Amino acid sequence: MTDFFSVVGKQRACRSFTDEPVTDTLVEQLLEAATHAPSAENTQPWVFVVVRDPETRARIGGITAAAWAGVGSEFSRPRLAAGLFADVERGATGGVSEAPVLVVVAADTTNCVEAALAASIFPAIQNLLLAANAAGLGSALTTLPTFAGDLSAILDLPGHIRPIAVVPIGHPAGPLGPPRRVPVAEKTHRERFGDRW
Amino acid sequence: MTDFFSVVGKQRACRSFTDEPVTDTLVEQLLEAATHAPSAENTQPWVFVVVRDPETRARIGGITAAAWAGVGSEFSRPRLAAGLFADVERGATGGVSEAPVLVVVAADTTNCVEAALAASIFPAIQNLLLAANAAGLGSALTTLPTFAGDLSAILDLPGHIRPIAVVPIGHPAGPLGPPRRVPVAEKTHRERFGDRW
Repeated sequence: MTDFFSVVGKQRACRSFTDEPVTDTLVEQLLEAATHAPSAENTQPWVFVVVRDPETRARIGGITAAAWAGVGSEFSRPRLAAGLFADVERGATGGVSEAPVLVVVAADTTNCVEAALAASIFPAIQNLLLAANAAGLGSALTTLPTFAGDLSAILDLPGHIRPIAVVPIGHPAGPLGPPRRVPVAEKTHRERFGDRW
Repeated sequence: MTDFFSVVGKQRACRSFTDEPVTDTLVEQLLEAATHAPSAENTQPWVFVVVRDPETRARIGGITAAAWAGVGSEFSRPRLAAGLFADVERGATGGVSEAPVLVVVAADTTNCVEAALAASIFPAIQNLLLAANAAGLGSALTTLPTFAGDLSAILDLPGHIRPIAVVPIGHPAGPLGPPRRVPVAEKTHRERFGDRW
């Protein structure tokens, strides 16, 4: 038994992994959770590519690092606290791709209208992340490698299969610490915007 | 203790509710779960408007029904099995807005770049839905009312606060039944697209 609220309350992005393997059975259990997310009209437009091959992971790591050097780093540096920036940078320059499993989550654009695509993919990704945490593993939602055009070429994705996120899965290299969140009351309004909770 | 994998495995959209109330304490617990979702750069761009007022719910129900009559119905009829279509139609024409609580989830567009907005909002919505289920409540991810321009006017949302979804929360009027999903193996590839799991 892994308590639902405990799993949700402890979610943190993990961007550094040990090389301890993750079995196919476990990967399948996590994907089973992912596929139980809702989607518009129950179209289930998700497509998963499970990458273990070190060479393919290194190529994905390479395009991630290039995207980070080209745009991400400059964009994020003034926006993030030093500690978070350093963690994201470690992840983007090798940490993420060193996870023993990379799940590339993509969307079949022929199976879902554009306006409903995000609503039909990100819940599945969130299930995948939570399930990894519930299983004692680390994971993270990374989209940087999807902005590099080469990801489709690396994975032989046809044009109608759009990569949405790369989710590294593995055993965390270190403790993740508690999440930092703005309190609910500051994000919530009653009946209409402006009347605070 | 509510087992994580059991909660995830049973998620179904609920579109018909009893009028049994849901307390503020419980709503806050569900929103607490929502705010523990990941977001790009931990920007937490979510904004929640908790609507209980029957008149406001009726107005949201009205624009939902209008959007259904105007576009949704014609679009969905040929795409959905008869049973699901009937359920969606009941929801869009009154079922959803009869939930005692409607949580309108919006995004602060000044707090997150456009390219990262969906990745930073839908995980929180999925947490909200799962948390409702974990608490024994019904919920659903509905976006139809956000396509009607009037939602912002009803809730006094400023221009930079973009409504993303309306999530009804309440006690299900009836049993929800098991989810129907395509098996993981049919959605999953090894190393590259085309090599089936």
